[in-house]
Amino acid sequence: MPSSPTPKSKVLVLGAGNFGSCLADHLGDSDHEVYIWSRHASFVQHFNTHHRNPNYLKDHVFSSNIHAVGPDIPDTGRIQQMDVLLFAIPTQGLRETLTKLRPSLVGENLPLLIFVNKGIETDTQALTLEIIADTCGGDVARVATFISGPSFATEIVRRQPTSVSVASLTESQAQKASQIFHQPWFRCYTGGDPIGLELAGALKNVYAIAAGMADGLGYENNTRASLITRGLGEMTRIGTAYGASPLTFLGLAGVGDLFLTCSSPTSRNYTVGYRLGKGEALEDIINTLGSVAEGVTTAKGVKKMIDEMDVSAPIANGIYQALYEGKDVKTGVQELMCRPPSRELDLPRKTGEQAKRLLKKLGIEPIG
Amino acid sequence: MPSSPTPKSKVLVLGAGNFGSCLADHLGDSDHEVYIWSRHASFVQHFNTHHRNPNYLKDHVFSSNIHAVGPDIPDTGRIQQMDVLLFAIPTQGLRETLTKLRPSLVGENLPLLIFVNKGIETDTQALTLEIIADTCGGDVARVATFISGPSFATEIVRRQPTSVSVASLTESQAQKASQIFHQPWFRCYTGGDPIGLELAGALKNVYAIAAGMADGLGYENNTRASLITRGLGEMTRIGTAYGASPLTFLGLAGVGDLFLTCSSPTSRNYTVGYRLGKGEALEDIINTLGSVAEGVTTAKGVKKMIDEMDVSAPIANGIYQALYEGKDVKTGVQELMCRPPSRELDLPRKTGEQAKRLLKKLGIEPIG
Repeated sequence: MPSSPTPKSKVLVLGAGNFGSCLADHLGDSDHEVYIWSRHASFVQHFNTHHRNPNYLKDHVFSSNIHAVGPDIPDTGRIQQMDVLLFAIPTQGLRETLTKLRPSLVGENLPLLIFVNKGIETDTQALTLEIIADTCGGDVARVATFISGPSFATEIVRRQPTSVSVASLTESQAQKASQIFHQPWFRCYTGGDPIGLELAGALKNVYAIAAGMADGLGYENNTRASLITRGLGEMTRIGTAYGASPLTFLGLAGVGDLFLTCSSPTSRNYTVGYRLGKGEALEDIINTLGSVAEGVTTAKGVKKMIDEMDVSAPIANGIYQALYEGKDVKTGVQELMCRPPSRELDLPRKTGEQAKRLLKKLGIEPIG
Repeated sequence: MPSSPTPKSKVLVLGAGNFGSCLADHLGDSDHEVYIWSRHASFVQHFNTHHRNPNYLKDHVFSSNIHAVGPDIPDTGRIQQMDVLLFAIPTQGLRETLTKLRPSLVGENLPLLIFVNKGIETDTQALTLEIIADTCGGDVARVATFISGPSFATEIVRRQPTSVSVASLTESQAQKASQIFHQPWFRCYTGGDPIGLELAGALKNVYAIAAGMADGLGYENNTRASLITRGLGEMTRIGTAYGASPLTFLGLAGVGDLFLTCSSPTSRNYTVGYRLGKGEALEDIINTLGSVAEGVTTAKGVKKMIDEMDVSAPIANGIYQALYEGKDVKTGVQELMCRPPSRELDLPRKTGEQAKRLLKKLGIEPIG
């Protein structure tokens, strides 16, 4: 039973993966009217018959106020009946889906748009904010809202207390999203820096590889804590150079999610690093892992980003070399350790060219 | 063998506890000429005969270039021969020791003063910086240097890669300290915010109690990550209100040490929290733990501080209530969870009155 008397909303969750499913469940559990879209007819039928997801969270029985729809993408009529669209599809598929939905995302009846995907678009290095602007225009991107934070799906469906960051350039939209999601066991903290939130969510996977690598090489607690902290410093430096607020990296989408991912031997990114540290070849790891861990792809985009922005990011560079240039991981670590002493957190002075460019695309004239 | 050709320094380590010993060992291992002072004659004799500490790190054989001195406090002659004095005595004993040493800490031959103790003086809520100013004057406090970060002593003596923050109001002094300590396996990162570094080191123990409590109550990864992150947010808020830089909390002395302490079931503060979460009474825990965990005392000082500064710190408040007002921990957690949604990191607008007062004591006229 929900404890706070929020008004019921109609929510369409796009994507029936692990995270989309658990958020659909949370919203159903909070008494909203929830629809979950999948492009697989078999999922739709199975879910509506058994209230279970055949692929993820298999042991969980979902609330009966969640209905699966699909496999066709919902039409304008259905979209415009919704109060909220929750996008839980992988970043790499988002441009296609948004392009299809674009005709429905116009006018005064625009639902609240919430995005929970993480990562950078591989071909373009675009953030989701930019993908939205490209496909649906700056007006839509300016009101888009993003949720990120330390949140394992299996724990959310068991109402284990979870907290997330909710950010939008239009902060009143973030507050609306917070009202819909917030429960004592799912706490929402709002902010106005979606660029920082997105960058943190993407970058942390690269540093999870580094944490796994250190553990695989046999390093202990001091090393692990310092690697995660220095990784956080790099994330903050990259984010600030891009144009995000450094304080976003102190939040749930930053240090919170980094902490969770780096502490979880079950995380795919951590596992890639751990096995590299143990001396396995990347190809063998990827072959047995089934699919690519997100940080492996992100490391490539981050490398381009730091080179373009000329930001010092030795850990991300080291991970890139280990993944793509066949560099021996032990040598890489030795080189990191042998760097000269430095000031702790020198944030770049010239900041924000990337963000300025992006904000202009959104029709916002950045200050300064 | 040390890898960097730093010039040899004469270092006197005051205090032969766990952390003092491991740092003496590190400096000896780096080829400095090291003296370690203890007020126990039996320690001095045992150490000089066997190169072992009979009380801490018992399995470790110390470098032969470390000599124990004592039990009398070293005289002015010896002090003025030293390049560095490293204070590794508990905060509660520091005022007494500095008062004794004061006559030796004058003139142009002032050695580099490095402090590694953590915590707030219980009776006065003074930071170490203030204790130094009170006992030795503002001139000495202004050049004092502080080292803090995620650093288990048992790992340092095994050359497990460790990184620390090194801060001083006179940043050139922090750089000197860094040159003396820095090795590939002991990396130093310098900064100019000793107030933030000190506050982080003291406050983190309170949040380690909270992390232990959550684990004791049976909460899982999402909760743990969000509690640590929200705790970091509180630390940052308290620090900023005091007059520290929020970015210091992103560093090794902040998030790094918080992460280490909260992840260590062997930490005394974590253990107190864990056992409180399991339903044990504080008195029973303290009785069987042998001595008081630092966070238990610090929680009292922090409570006074947040009340005086009127800073929102619900987790620290909750820990105080659980420790000193007999509040049921489950009820406390429920109340935390039922707080209304809020913005993620609202730093206080009026900042720094405490730091301004302290800096004035040091003869520094703060800006703004």
